[in-house]
Amino acid sequence: MNFTGSHILSIKQFERADIERVFEVADSMAPYALRRKVTRVLEGAILGSMFFEPSTRTRISFGCAFNLLGGEVRETTGFENSALAKGESLHDTARVLSGFSDVICMRHPKSGSVAEFAQASRVPVLNGGDGANEHPSQALLDLYTIRKELASKGRGIDGLRIAMIGDLRYGRTVHSLCKLLLLFNNIQVILVSPPELAMPESIVEQMRAAGHSVSITEDLPQSISHVDIAYSTRIQEERFDSQEEADIYRGRFRLNQAIYTQYCEPNTVIMHPLPRDSRANANELDNDLNQNPNLAIFRQADNGVLIRMALFSLVLDVVDQVHKSARDVNWYNSLRTP
Amino acid sequence: MNFTGSHILSIKQFERADIERVFEVADSMAPYALRRKVTRVLEGAILGSMFFEPSTRTRISFGCAFNLLGGEVRETTGFENSALAKGESLHDTARVLSGFSDVICMRHPKSGSVAEFAQASRVPVLNGGDGANEHPSQALLDLYTIRKELASKGRGIDGLRIAMIGDLRYGRTVHSLCKLLLLFNNIQVILVSPPELAMPESIVEQMRAAGHSVSITEDLPQSISHVDIAYSTRIQEERFDSQEEADIYRGRFRLNQAIYTQYCEPNTVIMHPLPRDSRANANELDNDLNQNPNLAIFRQADNGVLIRMALFSLVLDVVDQVHKSARDVNWYNSLRTP
Amino acid sequence: MNFTGSHILSIKQFERADIERVFEVADSMAPYALRRKVTRVLEGAILGSMFFEPSTRTRISFGCAFNLLGGEVRETTGFENSALAKGESLHDTARVLSGFSDVICMRHPKSGSVAEFAQASRVPVLNGGDGANEHPSQALLDLYTIRKELASKGRGIDGLRIAMIGDLRYGRTVHSLCKLLLLFNNIQVILVSPPELAMPESIVEQMRAAGHSVSITEDLPQSISHVDIAYSTRIQEERFDSQEEADIYRGRFRLNQAIYTQYCEPNTVIMHPLPRDSRANANELDNDLNQNPNLAIFRQADNGVLIRMALFSLVLDVVDQVHKSARDVNWYNSLRTP
Repeated sequence: MNFTGSHILSIKQFERADIERVFEVADSMAPYALRRKVTRVLEGAILGSMFFEPSTRTRISFGCAFNLLGGEVRETTGFENSALAKGESLHDTARVLSGFSDVICMRHPKSGSVAEFAQASRVPVLNGGDGANEHPSQALLDLYTIRKELASKGRGIDGLRIAMIGDLRYGRTVHSLCKLLLLFNNIQVILVSPPELAMPESIVEQMRAAGHSVSITEDLPQSISHVDIAYSTRIQEERFDSQEEADIYRGRFRLNQAIYTQYCEPNTVIMHPLPRDSRANANELDNDLNQNPNLAIFRQADNGVLIRMALFSLVLDVVDQVHKSARDVNWYNSLRTP
Repeated sequence: MNFTGSHILSIKQFERADIERVFEVADSMAPYALRRKVTRVLEGAILGSMFFEPSTRTRISFGCAFNLLGGEVRETTGFENSALAKGESLHDTARVLSGFSDVICMRHPKSGSVAEFAQASRVPVLNGGDGANEHPSQALLDLYTIRKELASKGRGIDGLRIAMIGDLRYGRTVHSLCKLLLLFNNIQVILVSPPELAMPESIVEQMRAAGHSVSITEDLPQSISHVDIAYSTRIQEERFDSQEEADIYRGRFRLNQAIYTQYCEPNTVIMHPLPRDSRANANELDNDLNQNPNLAIFRQADNGVLIRMALFSLVLDVVDQVHKSARDVNWYNSLRTP
Repeated sequence: MNFTGSHILSIKQFERADIERVFEVADSMAPYALRRKVTRVLEGAILGSMFFEPSTRTRISFGCAFNLLGGEVRETTGFENSALAKGESLHDTARVLSGFSDVICMRHPKSGSVAEFAQASRVPVLNGGDGANEHPSQALLDLYTIRKELASKGRGIDGLRIAMIGDLRYGRTVHSLCKLLLLFNNIQVILVSPPELAMPESIVEQMRAAGHSVSITEDLPQSISHVDIAYSTRIQEERFDSQEEADIYRGRFRLNQAIYTQYCEPNTVIMHPLPRDSRANANELDNDLNQNPNLAIFRQADNGVLIRMALFSLVLDVVDQVHKSARDVNWYNSLRTP
């Protein structure tokens, strides 16, 4: 794949070598994200950040990634007051707004909308999530996190053992992660969900066709006992046909420190796409895991900045220039020292 | 007119020489807007962008123009949560906020509000639209677009033949354009609208008093057959007394490729203030014109950035410095190559 | 107090020497805020500005202060669409968002929320107001304004005579100001309010225990006749039990030019935390005071930028570097010349 000037719309665009290229560039961004170094390579460039659907985390992550490369960000959020709401086509919006910036990141509630926008855009567009369809930078940061967490144990993605837990039917992130894993070898996937929220059959079949081992269960303890990664997602009770149905599963896929200690291998890494619901009746990851060094959920968020810096650098073709203009950070830096 | 430190509130401030000065400076901004060059002339300066009424396009255009000159933008959008909504006077808002920035662009739903704000402001204020009253940068970009489109045919604004089509009664942009055209010579204007939405008589009289030829018609094909510019605007059906009344005119002023081919001279330029309503029942410019090279509506939007860069540079008196600090763009640039 | 890397959550953190240090640094920021000089000391740094409750003035003041030091600002405003509204804990929000920036300013409607956020944050957090609790930068800018206004008369804060007028019960700013004044000597405070809106007894007692003179009255003319500062605040009529009750006090604490001329010593300084309600039925400061050179309310707002620049510089430990990279402003500057 030639990144220069490309839209990043779908993980289907990526081959294994492309992913490895993104990860290698992401690695090289750490000194800037950790505020050890400053680079101004994109000084004068403008990111058009268009969030027609709210997502604070993703919006700020894209924006900071661009700022860390030295560029400026002009934002649009919300839909109600946009020209789109007055009948302007995505084509027109794209033709107009793409003339104002050097690159665009865009989120929109409708599947396919970002690709439609990209077709009329005069500058590269990065998909920040288009409804149930794709959110490629999230998929890449998830896989990058897996790679990084395993690397500290001298392992690679090939041979990964992963449990995916919770809502596997509607969870965009686990679908995308499975599709990215098709590009790797010898993966063991354990899918843990209520039957109503099972992983779509087509994805299971693709995984098996790629030579991966897929098992399906409702038994959380068994599923997490021999994996490298436990990837948890939120179950929204509204997904069930009735409250009675929901009550059957309430808490059954919840992970906390006691369950972790009892069932997981030491150093099993816990991931989650965030935000995590921390209200008392939520059924996800308990706060008592916060001190567990294998809780990687905040490292995932940190890695998002690296991935987005990598994508901007590749698409705008400045990878080789980033480090030339680097200098030391001159202010007090809490991130530098862990 | 002495631009340095001036508020830009109304097109009435401009004489012909002033307009020509703005256009000359706008021309010189093209290398930056097209990302061939970067300038940092306003590095350290802050634009206070205050949109008490939403307008994504205008807001982003002002913001990008300021970023392209090297400055920062601090934005306020919406009205509900503002101090104005709690009873603060425009005087107080202006006194406070003008201390935070070097220049302000402001949009507000109420006629005259931007001028009232400017009176108390300690820094120059650019009117980004104050209700039905004025939107001077839009008027300037329209006339600048006409000048540029005609220049490629070896023509100037003097002697222009233009049809203005649609809602000429409430359309702020066509009123302002007519007033700017008073400063030029020998203009032929054809006004095409339902009688309910006719151009105000006072503007017609001013045009005629300036020696211009003004004709009024409801016949679209005849009106567009011998003009340089067809300037279309949206007709909102709510403007009519009844739906029956509206139905009489539905589609009668709509322009599409078939009508263009049948009636227009070759190279007749199509303009529109945008956004264009692209829904099926809209009665404006059809999407089948998108491939027509004479559709100038997106070039209008591009020109808006140039005009706003020119206004900022003139008001802050940096025109002569812009190019001194210029350097080549070092990232991949899709806009550079058309 | 060691400022480097500290959260600024409460005025209780400050001793007298700390306040004097902040004011000394704030003084040194004037050339940048007045656009005589530009500094880029924080070029490459990012401020995460999180306003979970709207406050245009405070948000823009923090943002401009950071821009004036050369840094970038990434903003989040509103609560409805935030992850917090979906059940994310302040801990998680802080862990995620603090990885994206070098320093955070935050406003939130709930008392104690900013401190809770700061506990999980990996970077310094500046409290921009947490409900009825604290708003330390406002308290500092109020005291800084008093210091500056008195300094022009060769006076210091010790020995200050001040009247606090209006809603002294719910007014966060007057509470904080009283607490800061505990660190100084020989203050005379006259408290003027309806009994329902009296200063909390605990604060009165603290003031007296510190050796200050505190008198309590409902008589505005008497209270303002021998003071250096008349600090007025808004009385919201909803605070009273009944409209009849409210009507008793309507206008009794209102200050205008006639009252000022009749009762105040020459050069008595008028302050107000802003926004001021300028509607006809408001009972605060009349607009006829706008020409009075002792009306310091807009200088208060200007001083807010200096105080916030000082806090950022201290917390990020760049005070000694600010001036090294200074250069002259190269654009037209309306603020420079008063």
